[in-house]
Amino acid sequence: MDRAMYTVLAGGVGASRFLQGLAMAVPQHQITVISNTGDDLEFAGLHVSPDTDIVIYALAGAVNPETGWGLAGDTFHVVEALQRFGYERWFNLGDRDLAMALHRTRRLREGWAMHRVVAELVAAWGLAVRILPMSDDPVRTVVQGPEGDLPFQEYMVRLRTEVEVRGLRFAGADAARPAPGVLEALREARAVILAPSNPFVSIGPILAVPGVREALGASPARRVAVSPIIAGQVVKGPAAKMLASLGHEVSALGVARLYRGLVDLFVLDTADAELAPAVEELGMRALVTETLMSTPERKRALAEAIVAAVEAAP
Amino acid sequence: MDRAMYTVLAGGVGASRFLQGLAMAVPQHQITVISNTGDDLEFAGLHVSPDTDIVIYALAGAVNPETGWGLAGDTFHVVEALQRFGYERWFNLGDRDLAMALHRTRRLREGWAMHRVVAELVAAWGLAVRILPMSDDPVRTVVQGPEGDLPFQEYMVRLRTEVEVRGLRFAGADAARPAPGVLEALREARAVILAPSNPFVSIGPILAVPGVREALGASPARRVAVSPIIAGQVVKGPAAKMLASLGHEVSALGVARLYRGLVDLFVLDTADAELAPAVEELGMRALVTETLMSTPERKRALAEAIVAAVEAAP
Repeated sequence: MDRAMYTVLAGGVGASRFLQGLAMAVPQHQITVISNTGDDLEFAGLHVSPDTDIVIYALAGAVNPETGWGLAGDTFHVVEALQRFGYERWFNLGDRDLAMALHRTRRLREGWAMHRVVAELVAAWGLAVRILPMSDDPVRTVVQGPEGDLPFQEYMVRLRTEVEVRGLRFAGADAARPAPGVLEALREARAVILAPSNPFVSIGPILAVPGVREALGASPARRVAVSPIIAGQVVKGPAAKMLASLGHEVSALGVARLYRGLVDLFVLDTADAELAPAVEELGMRALVTETLMSTPERKRALAEAIVAAVEAAP
Repeated sequence: MDRAMYTVLAGGVGASRFLQGLAMAVPQHQITVISNTGDDLEFAGLHVSPDTDIVIYALAGAVNPETGWGLAGDTFHVVEALQRFGYERWFNLGDRDLAMALHRTRRLREGWAMHRVVAELVAAWGLAVRILPMSDDPVRTVVQGPEGDLPFQEYMVRLRTEVEVRGLRFAGADAARPAPGVLEALREARAVILAPSNPFVSIGPILAVPGVREALGASPARRVAVSPIIAGQVVKGPAAKMLASLGHEVSALGVARLYRGLVDLFVLDTADAELAPAVEELGMRALVTETLMSTPERKRALAEAIVAAVEAAP
């Protein structure tokens, strides 16, 4: 393990944008991503890994800039044609995106472990980052709603998060083992960064894999988290709603409290500067900077601010 | 079994055109197709059944009129995207065509027998014909060439039939059982028609399934074959080359000899009228008519001529 390594716990869109910036601030080969696979789903018999793939597409510069997910210029002819066979249309997988899922599924059926499949996909996209699935074993995020359990993508995509989240569970997590390299990447990195992703359904499943939370808690690395909440709101996704419905303060401070004991440095937006003292009372340093990643320059500046703070640490 | 049933042993393009005509001459619900699955292949982890699908597409009026295979207006975005992962491009599966393979593969993995999957696909396309795979068990046509064995699609698509065929075998045929309904469809039909398909690689695999040749030989149905060879040539595909390389006369008579004992009525083109007496010496009646199915009218006329001959039989 390269002691200069930046290890990033990553969910979907927010993490993918953050990683675009980090890849401008440090060389790709110094980045290890631990990717959430709790969002994975089976669609038309294919194994789809939305969070892993959005990170790959973003780092390859191939993500659809209009939607923030999927591949730029992709078409949807396969999912349209599948409707003839009774498939619902809510999960909208593009044709080129589907090619990725097709190859992944083939490899998994051939008996490849997920980490080996992801390594092949990353190489096929010409990336020098290392992306590790959190586990080779299946873990599935389940949303506990008022009318019962929902697989995560049903909650997220079909129901557009318009269901009150009363709880979450990570089916399979108890029996899952961290993928090879995950614990080392937590223990031996220069820094471990919890990306500005949903703490419950993006970072949460990774921490639910036995051994991960402990390895992060005991890691000598500089441990950093970036708030996905800016001025009480989230850029994208249900993090704010979940904070509220699960009984937390809907603010960067509410997120910081969730990461207490796991993180040394908490990054929050200038809009939330007044929360910095309360964050520091939790036992972590607060870094106040611009965190809205609306342009390449802003993505890079956020990453550079974090890298500078990490490098400045003893 | 409806005693008015027309059962058709079918390969790919030639059979699909013949069936378009037959469906104009008799109601679809009086047609049972026994489809060659010896051409089936695995592509990117998907189970593709080219011969079954071309028949479905043709009967649904959805076949690409320019190529004679695949779906009209289809795109190839998935196979293009798969190239990134090292796939060869020679097997050119369209996106909407791939949706069919995706659903088939899903069902097979769920444990459905092939005949049940095909019935579902046929219904999804709104067809009233019955299509039976020759077997639920895997049978794979293998071409024995000068440099060894080739899976059929490699010979057909990748090498464009530009390999001398020294022999053929049907891997798995010995252990295969006819799909449910196949033997009844041979025994109890009004007529059994061997479509104008390649006798070696389209009709051959069907006859290689244990029990099929015997059931056809003993069937009280009117048994008809349509020559795929017109004036010593084939409209499409390697049938003429195979007749030559396997030591047969490259003519309608050469085909008739292959079907001796299996067929009561042999349909040959007006261009081959002079072969009729030699065909009749084989113990089958010869029906000389226009067999080139170049227009809908010609397809219909060929089918009507056969239906008339069948209905006129005692």
